[in-house]
Amino acid sequence: MTEQNHNQDCGRLIVRGEDRPGIVANVSDVLTEHGANIVSLDQSSSDPAGGRFFQRTVFHLPELSVRLDELSESLEAKLGERLGLEFQLVEAKRQKRVAIFVSRVDHCLLDLLWRQRRGELPMTVSMVVSNHPDLGDEVRQFDIPFFHVPVDKENKAAAEKEQLNLLKGNVDLLVLARYMQIVSGDFLDELGVPVINIHHSFLPAFMGAGPYQRAKDRGVKLVGATAHYVTEDLDEGPIIEQDVIRVSHRESVRDLQRKGADVERLVLSRAVSWHCDDRVIRDGSTTVVF
Amino acid sequence: MTEQNHNQDCGRLIVRGEDRPGIVANVSDVLTEHGANIVSLDQSSSDPAGGRFFQRTVFHLPELSVRLDELSESLEAKLGERLGLEFQLVEAKRQKRVAIFVSRVDHCLLDLLWRQRRGELPMTVSMVVSNHPDLGDEVRQFDIPFFHVPVDKENKAAAEKEQLNLLKGNVDLLVLARYMQIVSGDFLDELGVPVINIHHSFLPAFMGAGPYQRAKDRGVKLVGATAHYVTEDLDEGPIIEQDVIRVSHRESVRDLQRKGADVERLVLSRAVSWHCDDRVIRDGSTTVVF
Amino acid sequence: MTEQNHNQDCGRLIVRGEDRPGIVANVSDVLTEHGANIVSLDQSSSDPAGGRFFQRTVFHLPELSVRLDELSESLEAKLGERLGLEFQLVEAKRQKRVAIFVSRVDHCLLDLLWRQRRGELPMTVSMVVSNHPDLGDEVRQFDIPFFHVPVDKENKAAAEKEQLNLLKGNVDLLVLARYMQIVSGDFLDELGVPVINIHHSFLPAFMGAGPYQRAKDRGVKLVGATAHYVTEDLDEGPIIEQDVIRVSHRESVRDLQRKGADVERLVLSRAVSWHCDDRVIRDGSTTVVF
Amino acid sequence: MTEQNHNQDCGRLIVRGEDRPGIVANVSDVLTEHGANIVSLDQSSSDPAGGRFFQRTVFHLPELSVRLDELSESLEAKLGERLGLEFQLVEAKRQKRVAIFVSRVDHCLLDLLWRQRRGELPMTVSMVVSNHPDLGDEVRQFDIPFFHVPVDKENKAAAEKEQLNLLKGNVDLLVLARYMQIVSGDFLDELGVPVINIHHSFLPAFMGAGPYQRAKDRGVKLVGATAHYVTEDLDEGPIIEQDVIRVSHRESVRDLQRKGADVERLVLSRAVSWHCDDRVIRDGSTTVVF
Repeated sequence: MTEQNHNQDCGRLIVRGEDRPGIVANVSDVLTEHGANIVSLDQSSSDPAGGRFFQRTVFHLPELSVRLDELSESLEAKLGERLGLEFQLVEAKRQKRVAIFVSRVDHCLLDLLWRQRRGELPMTVSMVVSNHPDLGDEVRQFDIPFFHVPVDKENKAAAEKEQLNLLKGNVDLLVLARYMQIVSGDFLDELGVPVINIHHSFLPAFMGAGPYQRAKDRGVKLVGATAHYVTEDLDEGPIIEQDVIRVSHRESVRDLQRKGADVERLVLSRAVSWHCDDRVIRDGSTTVVF
Repeated sequence: MTEQNHNQDCGRLIVRGEDRPGIVANVSDVLTEHGANIVSLDQSSSDPAGGRFFQRTVFHLPELSVRLDELSESLEAKLGERLGLEFQLVEAKRQKRVAIFVSRVDHCLLDLLWRQRRGELPMTVSMVVSNHPDLGDEVRQFDIPFFHVPVDKENKAAAEKEQLNLLKGNVDLLVLARYMQIVSGDFLDELGVPVINIHHSFLPAFMGAGPYQRAKDRGVKLVGATAHYVTEDLDEGPIIEQDVIRVSHRESVRDLQRKGADVERLVLSRAVSWHCDDRVIRDGSTTVVF
Repeated sequence: MTEQNHNQDCGRLIVRGEDRPGIVANVSDVLTEHGANIVSLDQSSSDPAGGRFFQRTVFHLPELSVRLDELSESLEAKLGERLGLEFQLVEAKRQKRVAIFVSRVDHCLLDLLWRQRRGELPMTVSMVVSNHPDLGDEVRQFDIPFFHVPVDKENKAAAEKEQLNLLKGNVDLLVLARYMQIVSGDFLDELGVPVINIHHSFLPAFMGAGPYQRAKDRGVKLVGATAHYVTEDLDEGPIIEQDVIRVSHRESVRDLQRKGADVERLVLSRAVSWHCDDRVIRDGSTTVVF
Repeated sequence: MTEQNHNQDCGRLIVRGEDRPGIVANVSDVLTEHGANIVSLDQSSSDPAGGRFFQRTVFHLPELSVRLDELSESLEAKLGERLGLEFQLVEAKRQKRVAIFVSRVDHCLLDLLWRQRRGELPMTVSMVVSNHPDLGDEVRQFDIPFFHVPVDKENKAAAEKEQLNLLKGNVDLLVLARYMQIVSGDFLDELGVPVINIHHSFLPAFMGAGPYQRAKDRGVKLVGATAHYVTEDLDEGPIIEQDVIRVSHRESVRDLQRKGADVERLVLSRAVSWHCDDRVIRDGSTTVVF
């Protein structure tokens, strides 16, 4: 997790596919042949006897930018064609461009902006988009563009089109930081970049709306939050991170919301940070987090 | 929580009912009139503006055993008749008699027996009943009676009758310590004492069977356990205690089971301990835990 | 913890002194005689057999403001003179006035200001004072006065005098939100209101400077933070709240600082919130937190 | 963590030394040349720019037992002689032989024995040695030899000699499971295998004796436990694992001991489990835990 300051000439290689003998050695060989030095390596297999294989390798290679293409070609030849593996090759110094969608509740948004300003999040915030105008002044104090795109039942398709016009080509990640609208499957398809949502419950408990009220009614002793990739199935996307906090009968629903808000912003910022460091690999309905 | 050694002449008074002004003062007055000294007092209201009221008072009264009846009469007159409140009056030195139902998995059972022997649990274990004979030797090494009552689809009613014959009049609490059979509503009615179950998930997530496999499939980042009172609605009873432990993609279902087992035994032992200290008050579908 | 919205005509009574029979009943009686209704009551004794006694009672009394004096007189007569107890009587609607001292690191300061703005902290922030000018703009965006009082070895006494001129009579609490200067015993005496500090370690481990580096060197697996009342003995004051977060060999000292920063702001905001709700009672070198 | 069931023909290779380019690739190459398949690989560097390097590789190699020597020779040639690295090569199916030292307090001992019996700990318990006879019956019920070696001021050297006679050549690890005697530096030197101790506090807070009483006096809000390798400097050895649990003013010293006991046995069992899986690598005064 100390990579941010050492990003010059650092690359990240994510490899995934069907597990088989020799993948680690093959990856090492290609990198070594090109003069790269492995800085860190995480690897996992869903089942030692032939499951899915995942590897994240951070390496250092002088003049990486100009040598990226030839390295990519070698990887394609040795990993892609010969071993049938997928891979992504990323320059660590190139920060991901992120858009944030928000409604009126500000704690997750502000926490992301504040951490980004402190240098804790390796990302560029390209814009904040909201269906309400309330948070515009706050956002612009961070010198970040704010766009107000009202959404209601009648104009939903038009609003999504307007959002897509803002986003397309401009961002590598969309974060829903307590955005109280459902985004459509068409929107996700059209957007074509990952979308991370923060859900204010410990999924799969209390899926859907009003989780804190339902937690109070059910008398649970812990409330939590879940950051997950957004898929067409609401609240069913692959989970990136979760956490909980203890509550008791003494606390009202509003108290649960407040305690939960602290968990939400921690969980969301961790998930965004890990995603921006290419630590999260989707594996069907779950994730591998290195 | 330091009461166990100071139980001689100590009493516990649990009061519950509709909230109204003056309850705390009324309880204090009755106790003071009888010469009792309040050692500790916990009180809670579901809503400051007229909800349900709960109070647990621990008091010291010399020669409590012989003066219990007259105190009870005063409480009935002042709290019951005049204020419409329910109350329970308990001598702290009288430990609850507990039966434990278990199947083949031993970690929750052994943890309870071992804590009881160390003096950590203020209870007497009257018997252990199992639908399998496997754990008999283990239990009898603790000098506790073990009864094997086989249960299958055909004999379920007869088996429950045999269980009731063993339990009725002999126990104040039944603990299901990973007992893999559903107990019927008739059994609960007939038994007439509280029943605590340990469920191997963070309810209401993963209700029903196979929670660790489902947790693995869903990719959750925490697994947990829930101790709750048993009602006719499976896994829906009032929750007493819950806790969780962090897991990752590296762990198999069996690893989740092992980590979860540590949470299960901690959560169950806390719930049983609190119940035996009269700290848990049922409030509809939830609980107040003082 | 739901009191903030119900503060009109609500009072808090803190009672402390040598434990003896009948205190709870006496407190209840005085309140009842004056027409007050007890909303919640917490009580604790350092030793059931004659230790120190602490009680926090929240009550509702119509027209509390005009009746506070006569209630106070009765309490003085019955609790103070007759039972030798100390007490404080507080109107819940009167928020504490708080000054915050800060140096250059902003996370604890911003978290307090942001929570206060959201209505999570029942306090008024009267001013922020810093030995550096850096955070002035940030603070003033919250419409809170910011004063820059430089401190160095030569001018320390003069600087403290200037600080006291700003604070005296204007605040009920001083919070050191990562203020990197030691405040003198004379300053504390002269100030005459409680001072809360956040220390960036799990005290008593790593007292003094540079705790994260020392935590890294020692190879601890958890780092933490401690909020405590400030006394003349550095890092020795009564602890209000602590928490920790898990770390590993993978993390650098800077990573520990970042993770620790999240714990610091949570721990400090809890401590300040509890203090402002009169939930924290000092008991020699420790605290009782209701 | 799913290795235990797949141990046939599985090996573990631990490599450590000065970091330099190409280590991962070299290790992969040697393993691949010998026909081994890498099952999992963890790697860490204390500093990306030339610190200490650590790698744990689990691999599968048919007929490992008969091919261990030739693999070891290749590793010595390529890693040892050429790169100046240290390495250990371990057959996973060969469980470590463990001795446990204990005094009178039984919770850590019983937890280890019980987990070992359940198959949770990949070790063989060769013997239990105590300076008191109390726990002999308990231990022998697990079919494990128990030896009583009394220790007092006068006979300490003789007692250590007797202990060494029991241990030497028979064990790969010694666990101090609440053994209330200090072991001498001579004993450690003579024994020549790692020794793990459980300390009943969150080190470095409350080093030495009586930590729970001191935690109570200091008013900390969390108590904890620390498992560490034993060195001549008491309570200063490299930490393997730590954890904490929340406490409050309500709890007596005895309550802290009970809560702490739950943490102690969890922390110790994790540390022993990780050590037996060769997951813990000492790095000066700290550890790397894969």
